[in-house]
Amino acid sequence: MPEIRKDPVFGRWVIIASERGLRPNEFRAGQEAGYACPFCAGHEDLTPPEIYSLPGPGKGWRLRVVRNKYPALEAGGSVENRRSGIYNRMDGMGFHEVVIETPDHGTLLEQMPEESVADVVRTFKLRVGEIKKDPRIKYVMIFKNHGRNAGASLLHPHSQIIAMPMAPLRVMQEIEGAADYHRERGTCVFCDIVREELEFKRRVVAENADFLAVTPYASRFSFETWILPKRHVSHFEEMPDAQAGALAAALKTTLGKLAASLPELSYNLIVHTMPVQEPAAEHYHWHIEIMPKLTHVAGFEWGTGFYINTVSPEDAAEILNSGRRFKL
Amino acid sequence: MPEIRKDPVFGRWVIIASERGLRPNEFRAGQEAGYACPFCAGHEDLTPPEIYSLPGPGKGWRLRVVRNKYPALEAGGSVENRRSGIYNRMDGMGFHEVVIETPDHGTLLEQMPEESVADVVRTFKLRVGEIKKDPRIKYVMIFKNHGRNAGASLLHPHSQIIAMPMAPLRVMQEIEGAADYHRERGTCVFCDIVREELEFKRRVVAENADFLAVTPYASRFSFETWILPKRHVSHFEEMPDAQAGALAAALKTTLGKLAASLPELSYNLIVHTMPVQEPAAEHYHWHIEIMPKLTHVAGFEWGTGFYINTVSPEDAAEILNSGRRFKL
Repeated sequence: MPEIRKDPVFGRWVIIASERGLRPNEFRAGQEAGYACPFCAGHEDLTPPEIYSLPGPGKGWRLRVVRNKYPALEAGGSVENRRSGIYNRMDGMGFHEVVIETPDHGTLLEQMPEESVADVVRTFKLRVGEIKKDPRIKYVMIFKNHGRNAGASLLHPHSQIIAMPMAPLRVMQEIEGAADYHRERGTCVFCDIVREELEFKRRVVAENADFLAVTPYASRFSFETWILPKRHVSHFEEMPDAQAGALAAALKTTLGKLAASLPELSYNLIVHTMPVQEPAAEHYHWHIEIMPKLTHVAGFEWGTGFYINTVSPEDAAEILNSGRRFKL
Repeated sequence: MPEIRKDPVFGRWVIIASERGLRPNEFRAGQEAGYACPFCAGHEDLTPPEIYSLPGPGKGWRLRVVRNKYPALEAGGSVENRRSGIYNRMDGMGFHEVVIETPDHGTLLEQMPEESVADVVRTFKLRVGEIKKDPRIKYVMIFKNHGRNAGASLLHPHSQIIAMPMAPLRVMQEIEGAADYHRERGTCVFCDIVREELEFKRRVVAENADFLAVTPYASRFSFETWILPKRHVSHFEEMPDAQAGALAAALKTTLGKLAASLPELSYNLIVHTMPVQEPAAEHYHWHIEIMPKLTHVAGFEWGTGFYINTVSPEDAAEILNSGRRFKL
């Protein structure tokens, strides 16, 4: 059973999940003879039981959701706070699911047809809707690690859903920051960012009727890119179904441009959204943050909250839009 | 001139320093013919002018402080806040210095004699004392990136000092967290951690009369290790000079154990301390945090504030103290 420990200074919760250390790493294992990717069609028996799937051609599937074999959090256990000396901890209660985005090992998300990416988006919404029925779950984090430098252990295109009994500190700080802005100016900061960026134009990477992708003004990482819905919605799972295609298109364009300019792209993609049990909010607006991890750069900043970015967001957008390759 | 930009949601400041992207990377350049390490004895003309040095044998030096050739912040410029649309920014005013810890390219900090490590510690104190005379400087960050996975661009043993016109958000959050703890319990949380860890023992990695090294209870990273002074002092630069030897010994033991257990160790070492213009505080206690960066692991957590650690701090301390090699 994983354990959730609270840092006594920050109030930051950390998951201590020793069994996850045992998970295979395809970047090593993939080179060994006889290695079989557990996410490929025909290897369904290598994953834990299926939670959800979408039918593919013939008897196959086109998308599967399975439990993570090496979960960061597990369904059993109590969410009771326990003390040990001056410290606090609780059981690592929660859910950890994997969305296998395609049966095809080698097709990256941005290379998939728009309709398949829209399937992934709709599946995220559907799973959050199901998971939040458990009142112990306070936050559902949807994310995708792609590539070795981003901490991915498997190559096969997949994303992850972690449902947890508290909201991470960073999420709460983001929501409080947006609430402060709303109190001061009476507007949603993300709505203001959409307006400002559409006017300024030089940080825009992709745009369609419903979504805007930009390199944010205070980008922490080189080529950091956010995808924001143009219309205000606080919870990701409340996104209208009719927008799934537009989000898929924005994702394909954005990831496609990043992959074209950044050789061997690794990235972390994170859906930022409100805690699932909270009501709709005027001050917070869900969005996606994509953080490319350029090889061996900026290890320091990630641990300190002190960021130095050597590519201005204006330069990053210009490079991405020109299709030019960026040399480290 | 670098620029400091404020994130409108978090209030997080980010340094946009395009020229730093031009700096050499020894991990690539080192393999090229004719590459000369700018930090080695005899190559003094390859660095910007010297700020400080300690004499070595003969006509040589044993430690040098020079300006960073590719600074994240620069001495010129104004600290005035400027608006552009909904955003805020200021000139990247500050100082960025490099402490070349030894003339010898291949001797790691933990392999140097204790007296040489004590020289490094005393130099940090001395430089902070000088730099803080400029009232525009609010925070001085002392850190060391070692190894490729930690973002180091040069192999030669060195550390860095960045002096800036504001305290980073994470620093302020840490100090506020400690102030909350002090308000609630009337004690310093770091003093309590020292007491608790000395009693619990299983997370202790090194100990001497003045310092304690532990794997913290809510470790974010596998093998994360903190070095805490046993007696309360809020500002690093107020550490008694008589303790420089003890800190050097604690550093040597801790880094030595980390290097023995973790093959090809990369790490970030950060001195956590109060803003330099603030008076001594009862609630905050300077300390050093060392974050090993195991190859290609945990890219995700660094960008989200949501940490999953697969080696419990108790296991980490046990491995470090046994001298056993850890296999990823």
